[in-house]
Order: sequence, then C-alpha cells, then structure tokens
Amino acid sequence: MGMTKFGVSENTNIEMFSEAAMEAINESNLKPKDIQALFFGNVFGSHEEGQVNMAPFAAADIGIPNIPTTRFEGACASGSVAVRDAFMWVASGYYDIVLAGGTERVLAMDTPAATRAFAMCSNSYYEGPAGITFPGVFALLAHLYSHKYGIPLAKLKEQMAMVAIKNHRNGKLNPKAQFQATIRDLMEAWIARATQKGQSVPTWADEMEFLRDIKANPLIADPLQLYDCCPFTDGAAAVVLVSGDKARTLTDKPVLIAGVGQCSVGSLSDQKDFTQMKSRILSAKQAYAQAGIEPQDVDLCELHDCFTIAEIVSMECLGFFEFGHGGRAVERGETEIGGKIAINPSGGLKAKGHPIGATGAAQVYEVVKQLRSECGKRQVDGARIGMTDTLGGDAGTVCNIILKRGW
Amino acid sequence: MGMTKFGVSENTNIEMFSEAAMEAINESNLKPKDIQALFFGNVFGSHEEGQVNMAPFAAADIGIPNIPTTRFEGACASGSVAVRDAFMWVASGYYDIVLAGGTERVLAMDTPAATRAFAMCSNSYYEGPAGITFPGVFALLAHLYSHKYGIPLAKLKEQMAMVAIKNHRNGKLNPKAQFQATIRDLMEAWIARATQKGQSVPTWADEMEFLRDIKANPLIADPLQLYDCCPFTDGAAAVVLVSGDKARTLTDKPVLIAGVGQCSVGSLSDQKDFTQMKSRILSAKQAYAQAGIEPQDVDLCELHDCFTIAEIVSMECLGFFEFGHGGRAVERGETEIGGKIAINPSGGLKAKGHPIGATGAAQVYEVVKQLRSECGKRQVDGARIGMTDTLGGDAGTVCNIILKRGW
Repeated sequence: MGMTKFGVSENTNIEMFSEAAMEAINESNLKPKDIQALFFGNVFGSHEEGQVNMAPFAAADIGIPNIPTTRFEGACASGSVAVRDAFMWVASGYYDIVLAGGTERVLAMDTPAATRAFAMCSNSYYEGPAGITFPGVFALLAHLYSHKYGIPLAKLKEQMAMVAIKNHRNGKLNPKAQFQATIRDLMEAWIARATQKGQSVPTWADEMEFLRDIKANPLIADPLQLYDCCPFTDGAAAVVLVSGDKARTLTDKPVLIAGVGQCSVGSLSDQKDFTQMKSRILSAKQAYAQAGIEPQDVDLCELHDCFTIAEIVSMECLGFFEFGHGGRAVERGETEIGGKIAINPSGGLKAKGHPIGATGAAQVYEVVKQLRSECGKRQVDGARIGMTDTLGGDAGTVCNIILKRGW
Repeated sequence: MGMTKFGVSENTNIEMFSEAAMEAINESNLKPKDIQALFFGNVFGSHEEGQVNMAPFAAADIGIPNIPTTRFEGACASGSVAVRDAFMWVASGYYDIVLAGGTERVLAMDTPAATRAFAMCSNSYYEGPAGITFPGVFALLAHLYSHKYGIPLAKLKEQMAMVAIKNHRNGKLNPKAQFQATIRDLMEAWIARATQKGQSVPTWADEMEFLRDIKANPLIADPLQLYDCCPFTDGAAAVVLVSGDKARTLTDKPVLIAGVGQCSVGSLSDQKDFTQMKSRILSAKQAYAQAGIEPQDVDLCELHDCFTIAEIVSMECLGFFEFGHGGRAVERGETEIGGKIAINPSGGLKAKGHPIGATGAAQVYEVVKQLRSECGKRQVDGARIGMTDTLGGDAGTVCNIILKRGW
C-alpha cells in the first residue's frame, strides 16, 4: 500500500502517483520490474494538465515502461474501479503481481473550474442544462431525506454536523489526512485569528454552535454548509495485488480481497429514490455475496462521504443501518471508532481529502492498514473485515470492495 | 457486431453507441437484458460534450441501467483496450455475456481544437511544450524512416501514396466507411468542380500525379500531405463477447478471440527507435504467443493507419514484413485484398474513418465480418485468422487482438 499525504501538492499527477506506487512496491518487498501490469484511475487529467493516455507515462516514471497499462474512469469511483479490475486479472490467474491505484490533481483547477468539471460526472444532456453541480445534488438529497423520513431539517443538520465532527476527529489521527484538525481545533483557530485581528470574538458554547454559525461555516447549497462538504484535494494512492501463492512468499500479514461489486445507474432523473441508491445497493449485494458475509460482519467501512448527508445515506444503502436510521446511529456514536461499526476511521473524504481518481485506492489503503493493525491511535480494535464504498457521479458508478484479514 | 456509419454525425456519443450496441445485440440473437456488463471506450467526452462518467449513461440508454459499466481510455486504442478487458472477464468465467466497444464524437470539436485535444495523448510535460501535434509526430517518423532505411523521401512518399490509394479503394467497398471513394474518384470530383466553376482544369495523368500536386493535396506537415492523414470522424462500434458454451447456443458462425496483447511505452523521447515501436512489438508478441500462431499465419489485419507512414511501420512491427521493407510490399500489391496479407480491407482509419474511442472495436467488427465471409466485394477469400492493431498516442498504449474462425 502507498499513498501521498493528501492536500495541496506542487507535484504533477504522475509524480504523486510514482510516490504512492514506490511506497506500495517497497512495502511489498518487490521491485518495480516485478509488476506485470498497471491499472490506473484518473478523471480529469486533460483538464488539470492537458494529459490523457496517462497510464503509460505513470508506468514509465517508475521504470517499467513496457507493461500493459490501462486507465479507468468512473468519476469519483475511478480508483476503486481500477482496483476491482486488477483483482480480476490476478484472480483469473493471468497475472501474479499487479499495481493498481489512481491520482488526481484537482487543485490544478480553481474552485469554480473544479466544481464545473466535477459536474461533468452527472448526465451532461439531462442534468447539465439545469446548471446543477454536486453541492446542489447533495443539498437536494438532504431535503429529500428529511422529507421522506420525517426528520426535521434542523435535526438532520445536527446529525450531519456530527458526521463532520467524527470524521475530523478521525482525520486528526491520520498523518496522511488533508485536515489533521478536529472541528474544535478549527473553531479555536478561528477565535485565535479574530482575537489577533482585534475583531469581536464569537462566544460559541461548543463546536456544534460553531457549525451552526453561518459566518464561521458559510452556506454552500442549502442545507449544506462549508463543513458539510469534502475538500478539493491533490493526491495519489496505490495498491499491489498479488496471487495467493505469491502473497505467501511476500508477507505474513496478508489481507485478502474477499468480494467486489460494481453497478451503474442512469441519470438522476431516471432514479426512483435517490435516498435508496439502487446502484449502491446492488453493488454491495454483489460484494457481500462473493465474500459470503452480511453487513453486520463488517468491522469498518471507508465510505463515500463527499458530503455529510452522503455518509448517512451510504451507511443505509450498504445495510449497516435501517433506512432513515443512519442519522440516529451517528448521534448514538455507533459509527465511531469503537462503536458498532467504525465508519471512515481514516477521516473519510471529509477530513482525509478527496483526490477523485485516487479515492477508491486510498480507501483500500486505510482498510488494509486497519486489518493489519497498523493504524495507531485510530486503530479499530480487532478489525477482521473491512469494506470500501465509492460513488461516482449521481451514483452513476458505484464500486465496493470487501477485504479480510488472512490467512 | 455493430457499428454506425462512420463520418459526420448529428447524434451524441451515447446515441451513436446505442445504435451500434443494439445492432450487435440484435445480431447476436440476444436482448439488452442478457448483457451482464459493459466495457466502454471513449477519449474526449469531456471536451466534446462536457461528459465524463459516460459508461453508465450508455448502458441506461439501451435499457440496462443496473449493470457494472467501466470506461477505458488509452488514447486512440481505447476501444481495443475495452475489448481486451471484456475478454478477460468472460475468459475467466466471471461473466458469460458482455458488451464492449466505444464511441467518439470528434467533430463536436473543430479541426484546431481536435488537433490540440489529440495532442494531449502525447506526454504533456515532455512533448506538449514543444507544441507538437500528431501530424508532426508522424511527419518526423517518415523522415526518420527514410533516413534509417536509406529510402529516398520521394520514393517513400510514393509508397505512402499507394497506401492511401489502396485504403480508399477498399473503403469504397465498405458501406460503413466515411469515404466511399477511391482517390481516382476524388481526383475526378476535383476536375468536375473546377470545370463547373470555369477554372483552369488540371491535367493529371493519374491519381499518383494528383496526390503529388500540392494544390489538390495540400501539405500538412512535411512530408505528409492531406491524403496521408486519416480524417476526424464521428462513430461508434460495439461487440458482444460470450463464453464458448454460450456461443454454441447462439451461433453456428462463431469467431473466437485467440489471443490478446497490450503494452505501453514512455514518452516519445524515451523511445530508442520510433520506427521499431517496442510497445507494439511486445504487444503483438503477447497476442501471437497466446494464439499460438506466427505473423505469417494471419490472413488479414486491421491496423492503425492514422497516417500512411503509420501503416508501413505497423506492418513491420507486427512481423508481416522485414523492417524497412513495408513500402516495397505495398508497391508489389502484397497488402491488397488477395495479396500476401490483406491490410485494412475495411479501408482502415484512412478511408473508413477514425472515431478514436470506437476505432479498436470497429477493427474487431471488420475482422469478424471477414472471418464470417460477410464482406461482399471486399471479402478476403478463405480468411481464417485476422488481427487488429491499435496505437494510442506516440505508441504509449498499443493493443492487439487475434481472432480466428471457429469452431
């Protein structure tokens, strides 16, 4: 496993990917020349750096120019899709040792450009003309969720804020996270800045009050405020996948891919109920069936919290909680490290960051580190089974990977 | 198999792909709901139509929204890469029936924009700053080839012209080709236009003299003239791949995928000798080894004639002719339908057209139709083994597929 520290990078996509790839290869006790093929996720290379056909250059940069390389793009799920495909080429017996992962240099674009670019993951003919971008899509989802389950918006916003508080708390414990700060840290930093400037200093009772303050936490798309949204992020992540026989020669702490799932769906307007995303439900079902497990067997899940409401909806679609009950589970602390199921112990997209081509591979990174008990203060004790969940577009592409501690 | 008529289309990428996909599904005696997964090639959707994450919408458009869909991008080899990957998912036993192919709406961009977009398939950091675009890359290749093999440029240009003449002659026989006209037809049309306008009418002795005339066939990048270059094209192509067991229930004219190959290489500047493209040589070697055949066993090849010089170089890299002898083989008619090996009986990229995300799948389309003896006047008699060759970027991504008549 390898990943860059997520955040703002001055490196190119390929430089970031090489850093992650070499960490993964070195950690696997391999050399680049042992890698037989590259499965590579990236979404917006042509907009970030005027680069398509990036996979060959990525392999060349780590000294293995003459292997088969394949670029995958499934919006924000690109990295997961690459890992799932790599899994098949190894599981089928065609390759023994491959590299999979992804990279994204989102911050090569400014915020308006990146927001518009991301919107190209929605249907450009049926949704594009409405001018909607993803904060808008997920703001609508929050309203829909509130209405459908009869949860007052103020209550739902509190539950969403608790998702942000939890994920930032976890992210503080992750040295590779973009934001290694709790929401309380951010509040205190705000107060310190105001004091230093001689401005009137707000008197928030706690971080929940801080998050409610529209000056500290500006409105992005009602009801979403700034801290309901994951950041734009530069970063890369990489995974070495090997056959079982090969793994026995390389490690005594193996993690096995137990099941994979992938499913698509049409435009947002085709979907009957965006709070119960069919593509995600079907994708997870494939993964559970292949792994021979049930949702309650999962000890931790790295899931797609691009917005706080997205975490709640994902937890329900994956079967960890009843539909409409995700927010209450957050309130009860059931999704904390040490709770019923640890959700996003890495900090998630919200605090760890979301370099879209890399995100799926970075989720696999966290799950593997957890299953190896290498996560220090954010370790989920006794974790044996972990899962990833990555959402591309308006659920257009969903991919799930279930991993378990082996042998 | 299915493909749109290549050329200028008013349809969107997804509409074109649906047309090709439904032709393939209907011809296979299947219904869309029988398709278990989609493997989809597209390069520039975000530049053509503001659309990434296109694969899910493509599946939804033919009525199968909830299958796994994966988008592949390997520059001009994207369609081939999608087919190769689909092959593995079926060959491994994971799926029985899948759809693969691609689409590209190049003409949504104007010529300067498309030329710049295509250049993003080269390395954007090491080649991009030089301002080079693909006509320049292949013009340099022609000079290099001339120099390396001691073939005077005038002689090489004549051989290149013969490639164009052959491919347009084949294309005239292909009802799905963009240009269904021989070079002689184009010459006569030019004369007719000049006559009609009362302009001075050129007196070319034959089409070779027409091609030499810089007024009729303008210089693009020395030594390449207009008719050395393939066109920009809109189009889509699709292929249904099924397991052997399933094929027995669906057809009595099966075509088998006998071998696949794929290989990458770094930037142009990393490559020792662009006339002997290492990625192509290694990719073809993989495909030959898997199929258990030698180059001389191949009856026809749909190869990547993005420029006339590219056809000559490809024929040599694939092992059909000695290095430096490809041009002479063209002169001797050895690459004609009925010659030693039929090269581009479809008309190739040159006359059939080159919608880059679809091209690899369209090559498979032609080979399959040939192996089924369904090509009418352009039929290669007794064809039993056919091959495709697709080149992405400066040979950054190369993919080869060998097909044979079964059982």
